[in-house]
Amino acid sequence: MNNDVSNKVAIIGGTGPQGKGLALRLALAGVSVVLGSRDPAKAAETAQQLIATLAEQDCKADITGLSMEDATKAADDLVILSVPYSGHDATLTALAPLLVGKTLVDIVVPLAPGNPKAVVMPAAGSVTESAQLLLGDDIPVVGALHNVSAVTLNDLSRGINCDILVCGNDLDAKKRVMALIEKMGTQAYNAGLAESARCVEALTPILIRLNISKDVPFSHAGVRICPPDH
Amino acid sequence: MNNDVSNKVAIIGGTGPQGKGLALRLALAGVSVVLGSRDPAKAAETAQQLIATLAEQDCKADITGLSMEDATKAADDLVILSVPYSGHDATLTALAPLLVGKTLVDIVVPLAPGNPKAVVMPAAGSVTESAQLLLGDDIPVVGALHNVSAVTLNDLSRGINCDILVCGNDLDAKKRVMALIEKMGTQAYNAGLAESARCVEALTPILIRLNISKDVPFSHAGVRICPPDH
Repeated sequence: MNNDVSNKVAIIGGTGPQGKGLALRLALAGVSVVLGSRDPAKAAETAQQLIATLAEQDCKADITGLSMEDATKAADDLVILSVPYSGHDATLTALAPLLVGKTLVDIVVPLAPGNPKAVVMPAAGSVTESAQLLLGDDIPVVGALHNVSAVTLNDLSRGINCDILVCGNDLDAKKRVMALIEKMGTQAYNAGLAESARCVEALTPILIRLNISKDVPFSHAGVRICPPDH
Repeated sequence: MNNDVSNKVAIIGGTGPQGKGLALRLALAGVSVVLGSRDPAKAAETAQQLIATLAEQDCKADITGLSMEDATKAADDLVILSVPYSGHDATLTALAPLLVGKTLVDIVVPLAPGNPKAVVMPAAGSVTESAQLLLGDDIPVVGALHNVSAVTLNDLSRGINCDILVCGNDLDAKKRVMALIEKMGTQAYNAGLAESARCVEALTPILIRLNISKDVPFSHAGVRICPPDH
């Protein structure tokens, strides 16, 4: 491990399963990660655990842990938001002034309280659209990484069995996020404007339903875009 | 060809590309099809063309063409609705009395007028939910087959590169539709209640966007549910 990677991404809510899995995958891809948590000591401890997990890998990137605010400040550009939906708007409101000049990558899915097989979409249409409204047009919001299983992200013996549908109103910002995702070895697709998040976010509870179903012979399902059969 | 197949499905709007492709695939799977059109002569002519297309195949099912009303009456159970969204509600209102005791399979996607890369969802949330509201709870509505390319369906040299996400509030009806779909050689998944159609219908313009994009190296994209990588 060393610290000489200029490319540094923040993951806010980085001590949860999704955040930890993304941190591992990004670090393995050579991208340094700063975990942000309400509890900076927990963020630092989680970062040490993740570094230990990667001890036997040829990993050239670093993982550190800070407060949400300091992690946001430390990001070069991309700040990934990975908090439970219940804390989404309050977290963003607090971080908004620090996000000026950066890009928010919103991966939050508005699962129905007590029912992960359903969503309750916010009034704006989707979480991605809510975030864009809340932050204003000067801070680009990109919706991405909603459908990939946290278990898969954390199981480094497996590839990522899920293409990533990326949406948002700023094409350049989407391209930067797609480039980051493709470093993790999976395919990213431009799924259109922020309103496409109404579909993409709502795919997650459908996958969760399939994972729970006794009629489907596997769990941790992903979704892939397929070319025509030959 | 012969007429001794008891299992008979109607396709309303069956002279369009999606309807014709489904008719071919179903007939090849041994399911007889009645195309329904506002113009019964056109329906009969289309049926003859499809039979000619299948002339060299070992096809044991029949394809016929009738008015929308007579095709609905002729169906044993499943009536597939495949009309442009602009005609969806009026068609269903006209056919509603004939659908008592049958199951509606709604495959209509509410593409935005003039922009196939977007949807304008109806007030009920989705077309499937609109149809269920319109028909009342005694006639089950199943949403399905929204994402499969008409070009793919009509190209019998190819398999169907798209899993089918099936949604609706009546589990038995969904199971009958899933069994029909699997006869065509593709996988059907129970994607949950009718409200899941908000996601599934909105996937179609995302696929259309990818088909049009110069950045995606193929057209006629499908979507598949993937087990974990090994």
